[in-house]
Amino acid sequence: MVDTASRPTGAQGATASTTPAKGSRPGPKVDVEALGRQLLGTWADIRLASRERAAMPELQRIEGQSMEEHRERVLAQLQILVDMGAISRAYPKELGGEDDHGGNIAQFEELVIADPSLQIKAGVQWGLFGAAVLHLGTEKHHKKWLPDIMSLKLPGAFAMTETGHGSDVAAIGTTATYDEETQEFVIDTPFRGAWKDYLGNAALHGQAATVFAQLITKGVNHGVHCFFVPIRTANGNFKKGVGGEDDGLKGGLNGIDNGRLHFTGVRIPRENLLNRYGDVAPDGTYSSPIASPGRRFFTMLGTLVQGRVSLDGASTAASAMALTIAITYATQRRQFNAASETDEEVLLDYQRHQRRLLPKLATTYAQTFAHDEFLQKFDAVFSGKADTDADRQDLETVAAALKPLSTWHALETLQEAREATGGAGFLAENRIVGLRQDLDIYVTFEGDNNVLLQLVAKRLLTDYSKKFAKADAGALARMVIAQTAEKAYHGSGLRRLGQSVSDFGSTGRSVKELRDPEMQRELLTDRVETMIAGIAGRLRNTNKMSPAAAAAAFNRNQDELIEAARAHGELLQWEAFTRGLAETKDAGTKQVLTWLRDLFGLGLIEKHAAWYLINGRLSAQRAQSVTAYINRLLERLRPYSLDLVDAFGYSPEHLRAKISSGAEQERQDEARAYYAEQRANGTAPIDEKTLVKKAKKK
Amino acid sequence: MVDTASRPTGAQGATASTTPAKGSRPGPKVDVEALGRQLLGTWADIRLASRERAAMPELQRIEGQSMEEHRERVLAQLQILVDMGAISRAYPKELGGEDDHGGNIAQFEELVIADPSLQIKAGVQWGLFGAAVLHLGTEKHHKKWLPDIMSLKLPGAFAMTETGHGSDVAAIGTTATYDEETQEFVIDTPFRGAWKDYLGNAALHGQAATVFAQLITKGVNHGVHCFFVPIRTANGNFKKGVGGEDDGLKGGLNGIDNGRLHFTGVRIPRENLLNRYGDVAPDGTYSSPIASPGRRFFTMLGTLVQGRVSLDGASTAASAMALTIAITYATQRRQFNAASETDEEVLLDYQRHQRRLLPKLATTYAQTFAHDEFLQKFDAVFSGKADTDADRQDLETVAAALKPLSTWHALETLQEAREATGGAGFLAENRIVGLRQDLDIYVTFEGDNNVLLQLVAKRLLTDYSKKFAKADAGALARMVIAQTAEKAYHGSGLRRLGQSVSDFGSTGRSVKELRDPEMQRELLTDRVETMIAGIAGRLRNTNKMSPAAAAAAFNRNQDELIEAARAHGELLQWEAFTRGLAETKDAGTKQVLTWLRDLFGLGLIEKHAAWYLINGRLSAQRAQSVTAYINRLLERLRPYSLDLVDAFGYSPEHLRAKISSGAEQERQDEARAYYAEQRANGTAPIDEKTLVKKAKKK
Repeated sequence: MVDTASRPTGAQGATASTTPAKGSRPGPKVDVEALGRQLLGTWADIRLASRERAAMPELQRIEGQSMEEHRERVLAQLQILVDMGAISRAYPKELGGEDDHGGNIAQFEELVIADPSLQIKAGVQWGLFGAAVLHLGTEKHHKKWLPDIMSLKLPGAFAMTETGHGSDVAAIGTTATYDEETQEFVIDTPFRGAWKDYLGNAALHGQAATVFAQLITKGVNHGVHCFFVPIRTANGNFKKGVGGEDDGLKGGLNGIDNGRLHFTGVRIPRENLLNRYGDVAPDGTYSSPIASPGRRFFTMLGTLVQGRVSLDGASTAASAMALTIAITYATQRRQFNAASETDEEVLLDYQRHQRRLLPKLATTYAQTFAHDEFLQKFDAVFSGKADTDADRQDLETVAAALKPLSTWHALETLQEAREATGGAGFLAENRIVGLRQDLDIYVTFEGDNNVLLQLVAKRLLTDYSKKFAKADAGALARMVIAQTAEKAYHGSGLRRLGQSVSDFGSTGRSVKELRDPEMQRELLTDRVETMIAGIAGRLRNTNKMSPAAAAAAFNRNQDELIEAARAHGELLQWEAFTRGLAETKDAGTKQVLTWLRDLFGLGLIEKHAAWYLINGRLSAQRAQSVTAYINRLLERLRPYSLDLVDAFGYSPEHLRAKISSGAEQERQDEARAYYAEQRANGTAPIDEKTLVKKAKKK
Repeated sequence: MVDTASRPTGAQGATASTTPAKGSRPGPKVDVEALGRQLLGTWADIRLASRERAAMPELQRIEGQSMEEHRERVLAQLQILVDMGAISRAYPKELGGEDDHGGNIAQFEELVIADPSLQIKAGVQWGLFGAAVLHLGTEKHHKKWLPDIMSLKLPGAFAMTETGHGSDVAAIGTTATYDEETQEFVIDTPFRGAWKDYLGNAALHGQAATVFAQLITKGVNHGVHCFFVPIRTANGNFKKGVGGEDDGLKGGLNGIDNGRLHFTGVRIPRENLLNRYGDVAPDGTYSSPIASPGRRFFTMLGTLVQGRVSLDGASTAASAMALTIAITYATQRRQFNAASETDEEVLLDYQRHQRRLLPKLATTYAQTFAHDEFLQKFDAVFSGKADTDADRQDLETVAAALKPLSTWHALETLQEAREATGGAGFLAENRIVGLRQDLDIYVTFEGDNNVLLQLVAKRLLTDYSKKFAKADAGALARMVIAQTAEKAYHGSGLRRLGQSVSDFGSTGRSVKELRDPEMQRELLTDRVETMIAGIAGRLRNTNKMSPAAAAAAFNRNQDELIEAARAHGELLQWEAFTRGLAETKDAGTKQVLTWLRDLFGLGLIEKHAAWYLINGRLSAQRAQSVTAYINRLLERLRPYSLDLVDAFGYSPEHLRAKISSGAEQERQDEARAYYAEQRANGTAPIDEKTLVKKAKKK
């Protein structure tokens, strides 16, 4: 390998102590403890209790275990959680639970600290399998199965996804046909693509499964419903008619026994239909409290939104851990000595290193605030405090907007942390690679991220068209014309030219406007609205088209639709950060958090600068000053970087990464002391380069 | 999970056969075989022979092996390569080699198909350890050690990197102090940070190491030199004074026994200095054919550039494999049925899916052409056909520009392929996750990507200032003024306004200009030159500053410098693709490749659109038409996607991914046949939705 700096002449390192970071200077102080409490959010005590458990070695991953060992360990860990009374919070009080839905999620998502396999296997057992019985079943089902599910006497799989259908659940192939004669449902897998697949607990540990299938009675398909199906005998063999396969080794989460299931004429009693939203009488008559098959389907699936909520939280936690590791290391590690004969630079003093890590820190803060609001909304719906149809739809839209952003962010952050810690980051002992492998699947399970963002976009389009629903028939057309006029206004650069004139020679004025939160909000909001209005305009005639032509028109806008949905999610995060900031009491902390929020907001504007320029929302000069101001913010935030990661509150037992343990600081101190001593006592060899220079001077 | 489409009414699937892709239409035909031959490049036959070996099960990875088993397996595989006579190509003819440097790299990089651990472990043994003896040693060393290195009788480690110093090799701490009395070098590790680290073959299999250390004789440090140091006895224990540790489990490449080494007063004969570029006489007098210590250091390290060459090639191969898997699957897999009552859409017909995969295919093609040129240049230097200092420097700059881009591209492509294949992509049986884990480290080893790009930028800055070196003192200042004037011209939007006028109402004219390769070349070239000129202008006074002030000024431009280097690398790739295109004979193939090249070029321009807009190189309208034309290119390329991945030439034995084996097509056909039969014989249940609609009509 070739390096970019020349070796220091002679010995290195003046003192063994750390020189203050270059960016340090008198300025605001961060109240790390108070900030930490704020970041813990609404369910702080529950999170802290869960983190205490996550610090227990017996609940943590052992790197390097074989898949078989890891699977058995995680199963045993579930039992430890049961024994500690740490799993029943979401279940009904009469069964020993606490009816606490928000607290339950807060508690579970912290388990990602111990081992993502533990988080997800617990999620399969109690958040999917158990939750299906709880939310889709009725009292008889609760009494019959929930106690054993809660105690882990009855481990189960959540059999929704099929090899052939993932995100498109409505199209699954498994059938449950009612047999009036025996008053049973007959579960069948009609073809290979309809095998249930990727199910946790299916390969080994599951004794039953909540199986989603097309409910057919009296020759009518009433759509997807959920059935409780025993799959294994007490000795662990498949029951008659049930078969399956192990999914084998995966890219991560190997503590979970994912597998496949298929059914051939498997008979279950009529009562095993989880019948909260649809029932079949002994004579085969179907009934449902929800008349519309479409609404019924979405209502059933909507009860299972908690998976997305917890992935948003766990991804944010993993990002915070990765940044704690990488930023701690970056404040200790030194490399290259451009500025000094003796001292190498601390990594985080390099602009590029700041650029790589600090914007991700800002996003992680935004997500932390957004997640707490999201969880409050979830709790309000599931506790019944605010659970109208509109509330539920809003919750699902928020889930569909935030889960993609935070799960992708976790992968990007873990990867940047890996690269920013070099070869050390590639070692399992430093945690980052393991977390990244485990979290990889978060971006496509519980709803593929791209599919979820399309859901958001469709909701935005629906809301947009509703605005005009009550107006007369020509309203939409007039709106489109108005849009075009607006585009002509922005597009011709009139607003932009105004900016150029007012900015001319005054970067200061430009920056002052950019850090105005109202300006940031306007830019972010305007982008979502304009994109949606533009797409709505282009799709306005699709209702007059054939389904194929309408689908083609939609498809031609698909990429931009997804971008609009992403912009909407970013706006939600920015707004949550801004509201969180308003709650921050300590002045110094508030100042630093304001810089961080500005870094987040302006980072989004910089990322989408082309859009703002094309649409005349930013002048060229203004766009350039966004980048310049971001660089200034990075310098300002540099001295507070450690405070900002410390506030996440992870202890060494949580991080378990050797490179963030202080070992690097010890190594740096030792090396610097060695060279300093050589210089002090004159034992340092002379550098040949020094001799060459002297010779030239003669 | 919630889906975005409603279930088809009644049964699904009209026929069991595949309907033609929507984008298909009469058009050019691709000569896949001829294109495949072109992609194989200069060393086609050698590549094909190596791919035949890579198709042998005994050289392939077994997913799920423990680290211990995997390490032993890969060691045994090295012996198989030796026994097949497949490792000696780069070695001298008199030792049984062929002095074929380009062919040697071509041969080794194909091993990534079998197992990246095999590629890298072979690289450690013969491309680093052996190559250090070959290129830094002299004839006596070749005779003494190369035969055993080639036969694997002598496995060894390449001990350059230390825990404390990776990319900054010049600053390593290990010392080799000459003892005149015994005519020995004494190797010492002065502190923990100077332990050698991350070395393949160090944990278990290495019996010797080529150790890089500061050469000190007669009180003078002559800088980093390489020494041959035996480290283990025949029974596998460390020799006296040598110690070490196993790096343990890693994020990937677990078939390699990476570890740490340290030395305490380890004595080696004077002759063990690999003395091609620097020697010590028995009396301790140092001599070197290269007077400048700086140039000597870079010359020594420059002989080891082949690691970067082979990573560029292997990353491109891994990207090609990932795209072959994901695109094959995307032409078979169906999901959602917006356009039809009965047929679900093929994934690759979705705009978003095209956007996710086809630009990455275009980049992989660009890299394939660029890599072959790169390898030709490498071969010219190492064969002596063209090995002036300038040639060597150019080669290193190309290596530093291309390796970062292709290694990052591989990770992005493997990740996109993983996500585009959903849960299936997460299973080890489909290869993608394993390849991604292994290739992760490619972005930071053999030179951290960010550090390498800085090297490129410094070279570009040097070249830029040389342009003005012979002019009088005021030339640079005048150039800066000219730059500013140019910026005023572009920045004020004059050129852009001109575009707006000429584009007005004519997207066609705009597109015609955009697909003109000269226009693409000008836009890409202009960006590199303008960025470098701008940075040079801002740094023009640094020679008058203190080192600290100069370093700070440099640091404030670091992020943009790295972006400029990346732009340079992208231009190199674009130019290579365009030259490759000129060689394509078949008209149909040429047409399709032209679209693909345009997708690559315009994709770069779209990615950097903000820069082009800010700097007045593109009008808003022109920038919008870039995106519109990319979407059109995606539709055009859609029907050729399979041809384009087939041309990479990987057989099922190379891909070893179940989802690209045709299994998905079988599953789709089976499911569609099932529903078609139900419809044909009237056994399909009626959909409740149909009944609801009928009831409403009554």
